[in-house]
Amino acid sequence: MEDSLVPETRVLAVASHVVYGHVGNTMATFVMQSLGCEVAALNTVHFSNHTGYRQFKGTRATAQEISDLYQGLCQSNLTDFDVMLSGYAPSAAAVESVGTIGIDLQQKAEKRPGSFFWVLDPVMGDQGRLYVNDDVVPAYKKIAPFADLILPNQFEAEVLSGIKITSLATLAEAITAIHRIYSVPHVIITSVQLFKLSQSGSTPPPPENFLTVIGSTTRSDGSPRLFRVDIPALDCFFSGTGDMFAALTVARLSEAVSAAGDNLRATKSWVSPDIVAATDLPLAQATIKVLSSMHSVLERTMESRNAELAVAVPAHNGDLTTEEQAKRDYLRQTKAAEVRLVRNTRVLRDPKIQFKVQDWRKEDLPAHLQ
Amino acid sequence: MEDSLVPETRVLAVASHVVYGHVGNTMATFVMQSLGCEVAALNTVHFSNHTGYRQFKGTRATAQEISDLYQGLCQSNLTDFDVMLSGYAPSAAAVESVGTIGIDLQQKAEKRPGSFFWVLDPVMGDQGRLYVNDDVVPAYKKIAPFADLILPNQFEAEVLSGIKITSLATLAEAITAIHRIYSVPHVIITSVQLFKLSQSGSTPPPPENFLTVIGSTTRSDGSPRLFRVDIPALDCFFSGTGDMFAALTVARLSEAVSAAGDNLRATKSWVSPDIVAATDLPLAQATIKVLSSMHSVLERTMESRNAELAVAVPAHNGDLTTEEQAKRDYLRQTKAAEVRLVRNTRVLRDPKIQFKVQDWRKEDLPAHLQ
Repeated sequence: MEDSLVPETRVLAVASHVVYGHVGNTMATFVMQSLGCEVAALNTVHFSNHTGYRQFKGTRATAQEISDLYQGLCQSNLTDFDVMLSGYAPSAAAVESVGTIGIDLQQKAEKRPGSFFWVLDPVMGDQGRLYVNDDVVPAYKKIAPFADLILPNQFEAEVLSGIKITSLATLAEAITAIHRIYSVPHVIITSVQLFKLSQSGSTPPPPENFLTVIGSTTRSDGSPRLFRVDIPALDCFFSGTGDMFAALTVARLSEAVSAAGDNLRATKSWVSPDIVAATDLPLAQATIKVLSSMHSVLERTMESRNAELAVAVPAHNGDLTTEEQAKRDYLRQTKAAEVRLVRNTRVLRDPKIQFKVQDWRKEDLPAHLQ
Repeated sequence: MEDSLVPETRVLAVASHVVYGHVGNTMATFVMQSLGCEVAALNTVHFSNHTGYRQFKGTRATAQEISDLYQGLCQSNLTDFDVMLSGYAPSAAAVESVGTIGIDLQQKAEKRPGSFFWVLDPVMGDQGRLYVNDDVVPAYKKIAPFADLILPNQFEAEVLSGIKITSLATLAEAITAIHRIYSVPHVIITSVQLFKLSQSGSTPPPPENFLTVIGSTTRSDGSPRLFRVDIPALDCFFSGTGDMFAALTVARLSEAVSAAGDNLRATKSWVSPDIVAATDLPLAQATIKVLSSMHSVLERTMESRNAELAVAVPAHNGDLTTEEQAKRDYLRQTKAAEVRLVRNTRVLRDPKIQFKVQDWRKEDLPAHLQ
């Protein structure tokens, strides 16, 4: 037995694969494995690199291919998963296939409450823009009611809730709506620029260079238990951070739920008793560890990136046009920002806790949510 | 920086992917990552599980798809690999595609000797039987001359050398022939049942329950420097052990070559000066660590397997025919023997050295090889 590992957790991870770099399953698999989870990776695309390079080659799995791989597992009794983490799927039909897998695993576990938990990352878009086909949105809306935890970013939360997030009040409304519309007991909105929202109540917003993660687990009456963690934003764009967040959350939530008592692990959807305060939720406790690990890995990545970009580039044979030179520079900068995982597993396993979880005070919420 | 990691090594791993369990790249990627290598996994098949289950679903990559993924890396300048590890490819054309990748990477590194190293696992068959199409054999023979290290098992060594291994003498002849025919400087035959071979010379064979690994690095005159490591065989069949051996060898050889001095890392194909004895070769030193890690992981796997099989099976709903029951038992036993990796990374990183490397004495070799 090794120290610093989370309790044994068998995860089916359904997301994209890239040959080079770390996004999708190529991020999530290693992150969860490093923390001691047994991971079965079902890959929905096979690309040479992530799309942030603006060019890539490879193939997408069809909905049928995704279903077939799962049928392969079923026929050999290889479906003893504790958790499914589902991420990017390349079409509406593929999202439906993934949904069918999640629903089947939920049904198989029906007689053993808490024995299976589905974490759904509804990958649809970011920064106000869809980057999937329009028909993927209703596909996600159809499968979301079967998930236990859903991890939208701010834009995806707007899409799922139908509420434009412009203030703390509308943020709380959106989370409440996601709980209600999809009966999904746990929600984390993975990245909100809180200082941009209009404020209300007495809790001050964080400074401008901070991001906020907002989470909630429902009470038995369906009302949200909202918590918030503010983290300093790093001045660099990294690909795959959503996948790192989701993967760490799987491992840390499994750990926190096992440690929680109350027979929580054998409770449907791992929903804590009403008496547990927002900041004491396993979801909140997990989030602090997740964000602490992520921040350390990304700080180190930024150092490595800066060192890599400081090295002089060997001259190219022959003249490059301005456009060719710009492309070459862009590719180099994108490569330099690939998240550095394999030399930094210690901070994944043993994060130095550097963030605080805060309750949303009642007076910060709109009257009908207090 | 983390302790117990090998020096930074960027590896392109070309082999099969399975959703459940650990073989091919699903074994090799995590093993190399655990030791600190940055791994780019180019998957040649996408199966639900390994073929030892006798049933699986999934798809094979075409030769064109393999080439396309590599072209995707090339166009974005993502080919800065120190090592390529190539394993199973699903057709002769796919083997050729993999060969073209290896040759291209060798050519790119031509002006920087030692900056790229190709480890070729010529996956063709075992126990006297081919499990690939006949046309895969000439495909491997065509690409082998571009590899730096080749890792056949006893049967594959016979196929490549054209020499039937029936004695220590013919074993030495086969390795010598592989060095000569393919100009490949490093060879390891990954598993020989030495006690079954007719003996000569003064070195006693190991007992019957031992396996032997035989390796060699050529001298400047092309003659072999042969070493041997005997290891106790475990009474269980595990899938993916060849892939684990290859992956550990990549990491440990990179480590041993970096530690060797003699500017070895900047020497073509990492071939040690003639003065270095067989047992002092980086390849030999790497092999001891590799086998020590493997033996510990497999011992722990066997314990976990036995514990898993000792648990009573829940009764099946409805009667099963004898045949159905036998199939169910077989699947269960195969699953129980999946190699346990994620909870055992410490013995991958910090093996307890438990085996000795031995020189082959001159008098053990046929006269013309002495």
